[in-house]
Amino acid sequence: MESTLKNIKLILAYDGSNYHGWQRQKNSITVQEVIEDNLQKMVGAPVRLVCSGRTDAGVHAVGQVCNFLTSSRIPPESIKKGLNSLLPDDVLVREAEFVPLDFHSRYWAKCKTYEYRILNRPEPDIFDRKYIWHIRLPLNIKKMEAALSHLKGRHDFSSFRSSGGKDSDPVRNILKAELQVSENKMLRFVLEADGFLRHMVRNIVGTVIEVGMGRIDYDKFCRILDAKDRRAAGLKAPPQGLFLMEVLY
Amino acid sequence: MESTLKNIKLILAYDGSNYHGWQRQKNSITVQEVIEDNLQKMVGAPVRLVCSGRTDAGVHAVGQVCNFLTSSRIPPESIKKGLNSLLPDDVLVREAEFVPLDFHSRYWAKCKTYEYRILNRPEPDIFDRKYIWHIRLPLNIKKMEAALSHLKGRHDFSSFRSSGGKDSDPVRNILKAELQVSENKMLRFVLEADGFLRHMVRNIVGTVIEVGMGRIDYDKFCRILDAKDRRAAGLKAPPQGLFLMEVLY
Repeated sequence: MESTLKNIKLILAYDGSNYHGWQRQKNSITVQEVIEDNLQKMVGAPVRLVCSGRTDAGVHAVGQVCNFLTSSRIPPESIKKGLNSLLPDDVLVREAEFVPLDFHSRYWAKCKTYEYRILNRPEPDIFDRKYIWHIRLPLNIKKMEAALSHLKGRHDFSSFRSSGGKDSDPVRNILKAELQVSENKMLRFVLEADGFLRHMVRNIVGTVIEVGMGRIDYDKFCRILDAKDRRAAGLKAPPQGLFLMEVLY
Repeated sequence: MESTLKNIKLILAYDGSNYHGWQRQKNSITVQEVIEDNLQKMVGAPVRLVCSGRTDAGVHAVGQVCNFLTSSRIPPESIKKGLNSLLPDDVLVREAEFVPLDFHSRYWAKCKTYEYRILNRPEPDIFDRKYIWHIRLPLNIKKMEAALSHLKGRHDFSSFRSSGGKDSDPVRNILKAELQVSENKMLRFVLEADGFLRHMVRNIVGTVIEVGMGRIDYDKFCRILDAKDRRAAGLKAPPQGLFLMEVLY
């Protein structure tokens, strides 16, 4: 029987608006639960998903990665089709494939990309309200770009970790930290790193927004990073603007 | 007291997903009700909104127009701000202004523009699922454009009116009927006319989609228009892809 065990990797997109995050919880619906429960219907046995990293309540994913061990003979392409016919319309399996038995979505992840979307104009966009942080006050793009580029490279990001974060090592290597601005006043923060601490993207974006508002200047922003203390940083951006875009292995 | 009566015009955007259409109903929440109830809180008296045309359950608006008579002294700009602070986040007052006492949102409308959005590719877009009709089968753009352009001008549109439609005169003048295609496989049908019969846009779009699928050829499409009979036409497109974009006076 051992020899029939397989490891299947899924790439998922989900709209986090109606979920209490990724991780299974009592009394609250989560993305993990809805996928595991439907997988169980297909393979006829309980399934435990391992994901690249838990997303918080209200956070979205375009390219979350997870994997599970199963002795089912259903091929990955049929797992994808079958799951998509069972899942609610806010969760989608984009890809399914066999991976080596020792593949682990979290431990094997080499690089992750997050995007944070902000609408920066007086008028809200009611159709995008669940996918953006709406900021009415004008933001200084140049100042935010300067702050972002200061974050690039290997640093101790303790100042931007959630107080509840339990990772032992607070050092991460940020490979990309940029701001894309489109005509319709949509700002996209794109952050790529070898890993992220709990709430790190939202704490970075919130603090950089305070730079853009003129409340925190460049020198102070640098001191916040140096402080290695969460109490030094600024706002935490709300969850609905955040998207896990891609996980590389 | 007569002399203090004012007529105020509002331009509204709303996400129709959570409403049973525009028109007030017993036991169902509607856009009209949510605005009238909040207006009443502001002006201290019952308010009756007249709108340019009722939208159906699930249909959206970017530029719906309505007006109401009031003896309140609150200026339009404050009506706009106050209403926006009271309204749920899926309804927005974009503009508010005084208009002549005899202005009537429906009777005075000269031209209306609707847009219908379709995602034409195998993969769904879960973030846009409430704002598009997702069609997996490839559609023939040229054939759909030919059908659309046949509709331009003044015609009896009985074939595309809802069986429940009660307008006495089924003749309308279509000024624009075009299809915009963007790289990400989003199709936008843009229809501009002096007015639309009940369900006319959705019946036109559904039938043109059947042309794009090859089920209805150009000659048959022309005969459908000529038939002046709803039973001759094709599918009715679902509501969530439809947006009332603009009303001109």
